[in-house]
Order: sequence, then C-alpha cells, then structure tokens
Amino acid sequence: MKISKPTLLIDRYKVASNIDKMIKKAAEAGCVFRPHFKTHQSKEVGKIFREKGVNEITVSSVSMAEYFAEDGWNDITIAFPCNILEIYSINNLAKEVELNLMTDSNFTGDFLSKNLTSKCGLFIKIDIGYNRSGLEYNSPEIDEIIKTCEQSNNLIFKGFLTHDGRNYSAIGKAEIERNLVEAINIFKRLKQKYPGAIFSWGDTPSCSLVEDLGFFDELRPGNFVYYDVMQYHIGSCSLDEIAVAVACPVVSINKSRSELVVYGGAVHLSKEFIAADNNFTLFGYVVNIENNKWLNPINGAYVARLSQEHGIIKMPPKELEKFKPGDIVGILPIHSCLTANLLPDNYIIV
Amino acid sequence: MKISKPTLLIDRYKVASNIDKMIKKAAEAGCVFRPHFKTHQSKEVGKIFREKGVNEITVSSVSMAEYFAEDGWNDITIAFPCNILEIYSINNLAKEVELNLMTDSNFTGDFLSKNLTSKCGLFIKIDIGYNRSGLEYNSPEIDEIIKTCEQSNNLIFKGFLTHDGRNYSAIGKAEIERNLVEAINIFKRLKQKYPGAIFSWGDTPSCSLVEDLGFFDELRPGNFVYYDVMQYHIGSCSLDEIAVAVACPVVSINKSRSELVVYGGAVHLSKEFIAADNNFTLFGYVVNIENNKWLNPINGAYVARLSQEHGIIKMPPKELEKFKPGDIVGILPIHSCLTANLLPDNYIIV
Repeated sequence: MKISKPTLLIDRYKVASNIDKMIKKAAEAGCVFRPHFKTHQSKEVGKIFREKGVNEITVSSVSMAEYFAEDGWNDITIAFPCNILEIYSINNLAKEVELNLMTDSNFTGDFLSKNLTSKCGLFIKIDIGYNRSGLEYNSPEIDEIIKTCEQSNNLIFKGFLTHDGRNYSAIGKAEIERNLVEAINIFKRLKQKYPGAIFSWGDTPSCSLVEDLGFFDELRPGNFVYYDVMQYHIGSCSLDEIAVAVACPVVSINKSRSELVVYGGAVHLSKEFIAADNNFTLFGYVVNIENNKWLNPINGAYVARLSQEHGIIKMPPKELEKFKPGDIVGILPIHSCLTANLLPDNYIIV
Repeated sequence: MKISKPTLLIDRYKVASNIDKMIKKAAEAGCVFRPHFKTHQSKEVGKIFREKGVNEITVSSVSMAEYFAEDGWNDITIAFPCNILEIYSINNLAKEVELNLMTDSNFTGDFLSKNLTSKCGLFIKIDIGYNRSGLEYNSPEIDEIIKTCEQSNNLIFKGFLTHDGRNYSAIGKAEIERNLVEAINIFKRLKQKYPGAIFSWGDTPSCSLVEDLGFFDELRPGNFVYYDVMQYHIGSCSLDEIAVAVACPVVSINKSRSELVVYGGAVHLSKEFIAADNNFTLFGYVVNIENNKWLNPINGAYVARLSQEHGIIKMPPKELEKFKPGDIVGILPIHSCLTANLLPDNYIIV
C-alpha cells in the first residue's frame, strides 16, 4: 500500500520480540500473563499474542471487551472502575466470556450483586500511592465489598489489582524498584489477611525493568507491545524496541527556520509531550522511512509543535535539505497508546 | 438516549446562536463567510450552517473534503498545505466540486500544474508571524507560484490565505487587535501588488473579538461554532457560549482527596490543557448535567488529570457529596476541535 496520509507503521518483528520478552518475564516470575490490550486495540495485533499462547487479556472499557470478545477472546478483565451504567452490556458479555470487573466501591459492588445475571469475577482496586482510584489497603470498605460478594450469586471476589502509575513519571530502574518495594509491603499485609486472593500487577516500566516480579500472581502490562519515546525516557526500552512509527507526508519546508511541516498533527499523534527544564518540548522523535521500515532517530531532529493536522519538525539544515514536499518522514510517538487509538484504520503491519 | 459512556452533548441553540453572530459579523465586514468545518467534522452540524444559507466551507484535509462533498457541499477550500501524495483523491474531488487548494511551495504548485485533471483554485499561504507554514509577503516564490498558475490549464491563482495562530496564545482583545494591525500592514502591500487577489482570513479569537474585519474578502473561523475553555480564557467567548460538554459517568469517588474519577479520559477529551504559573493544570471545567443540558461550571471544580480512559476531577467536598457512582457529570473541553474529533460517533445534539 502506498502511503498518502498519516499512517501507523507497526513493526511485526519488534512487536513479536517485545511480546516474547514479556512472556518470558511472566513465566520466570510464575505469573499469569494477562496483557493489556488498550495499547493496540487491534484484533490483528491480538492475533500475534494468540499465536504465542496468550489467552487471558486485560482491557480498559466495556466497548473494548466487546470488540475483543467478538474476535474469540474469552477471558477478559476490564481493569477500569466498573461503570454501572453499562450493566446491560456487561451482562451480555458475561453470558459469553469469563469476565472480571474491578471496583473500589461497595456501592458499585452492591449494584453488581443485585443486577448481574451471569457470574463475574471482581477485583478490588488498591491504591498504592498513585492517587487515581482504589482503596487504601486498610480501608474497611475492602471487607464490605468481599462480604457483598459472599452474599451474591453472581459476583465472585477474585483478588486485588493495582496500577502503579507513579512509574510513568519515574526515571530509571532504581526509582521504579523503590516504588515496587513500597507496593509489595502494602500487598504483603493484604496477602496475610486474604491468603486465597489473586494479586494482579501491571505497568510497563516495572514489568520491563524489574527482574523479580514473583510476589504477584498476574502481570498486566500493555504499552510494552509498542513502547514509545516516553518509555525510552523512563528507561523501560531501547530506541530499537519502539515498534511503531507514524509515517507522515511532508507538506511544507521552511529553510530559514530549518523546519518541515508534515501532515500529521494532534489528531494523529495526540498532544502528549515530554517537557524539559529549559523550555524544550518534545512531541516525538523523527526517523527516516525506507520501505516502510525505520532506523534510529535523525540526530537533532524532533517534533517541536503540533496543531490539529500539522506537525512542525525541527531538523538540522543538512538533514532538511534531503526532503521535498511529497516525501514521507516517520515520527516515533511520545505515547503509543494514544497514537494507536487515533489511527484505528490507518495502519500497516510491516 | 440514555447516556452510558462519554458522550459529546452539542447544544443546538448555542450552536445556532454562535453561527448567527458570526454570519452577522461577516456580513457587516462585507466578507464571504467560509466557516472551517474541522471543529465539528459533522454532517449534522453542517446542516445547521446550511439552513442559515452557508454554502462555502473550509476543511483541513482531503478526507474531510470528501466527507462533506458526499453530503452535497460543493464549494470547499482545503486550508492545509496541499499534500501532493493525495493527487488521486484531489482530482476525483475537483471533478465534482469547486475546490480550492493552498500551498507555500512552487514545487507543489508545479506538481499540481502537471497533475491536475480538473480546474482547482489555489491560495498562497502567507505567514504573518505564526511561523507554522507560509511564505513571507516579500518572498520571490509568490511570483513563481503565480507564474506557474498562469501557465497552467487547471491551476487558478485565487489569492492569499493566512491563519494568525498567535491569537490562540493571546489574552484579550488588545493583543489580538495589535496582531491584526500587523497582519493588515503586511497584507496591504500584497493588495497593492496583486489587486485582484482574494484575501482570506480566519481564526476564532480575532473573528470573535475584532469589530471591523472589512479589510478581508473572506472569513474562515471554525472553533466559534462550539467555543471551549481555551477560547473563554483568551476572551473570545463567554462561558454561556460554549456549546459542547462531554457527559461522563462517575466511576469512583475519593472523599479524602475530594476527587471524582469519571469514565472520560485522554481518548475522549484529548490531552490539551491550560497551565497557570502556580503549577495549576486545567484539563476542563466541570458542569452539572440535567436532561442533557448544563449550567455554568461548578465553582471550584476542575479536571486535574487525565489518563487514557480516566478523568480525575477535583471538587469542593460539599459538591462532591452530591455524586455517587453511576451519576453523570459534564466536562467543558479545553479544545473542542480535538474533543469533537475524538467522539465522532458518541454525540447527541440536544
């Protein structure tokens, strides 16, 4: 296919290699591997996981669960605080697949207990310091939710789930290991109190960087399948492991500012960025595309600004002079989950 | 329709009123009104414009031109540097509708001259200081492009087009008026040299705030149809004029941090934000939704953070206590163009 508009290139070899490494990591830790499919949201990429023996998956919405259930995935955890307004769809899903929900609220637990028409697993979300959602490990609401499950015909308490989002603003392995020690200390108390519970863990930085995740029963990383510039900055991956690039047509060239304008903006890449102290803002690295493959970033080139459809790339003059309108340049995204979400139809697996 | 997931509510009355005001402004200035449809990207909202007599429109991609051409729009300017890789689609479009392209490059002009199979108008993009794309008013390439048009069977020079993106980081009318005086001074020289050319202008802040736009021949604002929190901060609109809100289900409540978590994140709102000096970051204002309508923002409530699917709302305790999981809360978006782009199917015109 000839590329004529912003197109997500997905490198099948890198994807397969990223998956292999994570399968190995989970196996070594003795964990169930339940990858998060919110990053790719693609049945076609899902097939690569399936071919490698993955059967259990995580998603972040009921809609995403429906999308993958249609494709034959039948063991799905929705790792997002259960939205009781979607009870009709949840009941339809739970008839067809093994479904696990998640909550931090006994109000929601009680609603589910009364309104579920098929069996569903329930994870209680624990907040280990990210302060997004979840109960503290010593909250009395944990026992209330478990009690609700015990009295329910359809709602089955499965265990505890957390997401250490702090690791997305961490730099390097040491900080991530400190976060993990903190989290395990919290979880240890829960494990003592609830010995049969499943402990589900998952964020790409810790799953990529920490050697021993053997404390947990289940790992749910998602981003690792593609990685991105943010993960590279955290230290979770090498540049080589980034498995996606957005191919963008060059539409304007400004020699005096040494800038390329590409068709490829906020509606293709998302406005996620990395900011440095010196007022430097980075919306992506820039790569040369040849036969839909790319090498390491062009030295000194970066996406400096984004409008709705425009990307503005700064580039050294000797690199800039190689481009003319109608050429294709690649952008390594800052946050591949958001970029892939924006290009559901414009992608090529290469 | 009962809302169960993040849904864009579009207030038909506010949309109609915003359009009426801008039609009046253009008429008073003696300008053709060619609104930019990249904000709503909706045939249904397009119909509201059509009912008010609007026939000429602006879009920012060939795909968007195709979408609206399908719905009977037949006078379309693609106000984005022409992407020559889409020549096949451009030729198909130009067979069916009056099509205007835009460029700042004679390389592109020459390509179009050689490859167009139907007549197309061409605007030359002038950079009046925003430094995104466009030629300076005294660039020799202007004459080269015009000469290319003169020698072409199908490429017809129409005039000059600019977008003063500086106004999106301006605060208040005075700064925007200063920008306009600068721009008009530049355009005056072009008007002297090219007396028959069309001068096309368009950005929502100046079109909303400046009384007299009579220098121009054509106005292309887009965002005004919905407005948003960013435009409110610039001073382009009142809070009352913001015509869209995203209805989001409440999924988690944290009393100790006085926070609501809603189903509504970066994939619904976009990661656009407003940052203040004191480390305050704003991803949206918060409104109560009743019968799919909303009033002014809840005092002291704001969207403080966004993950892929989560929105984290800070709210005073006495407001927070009114909510429980399964309720709906509204978010006024920071940048309605990006939000509407993310919710193409989940919207209700109320």
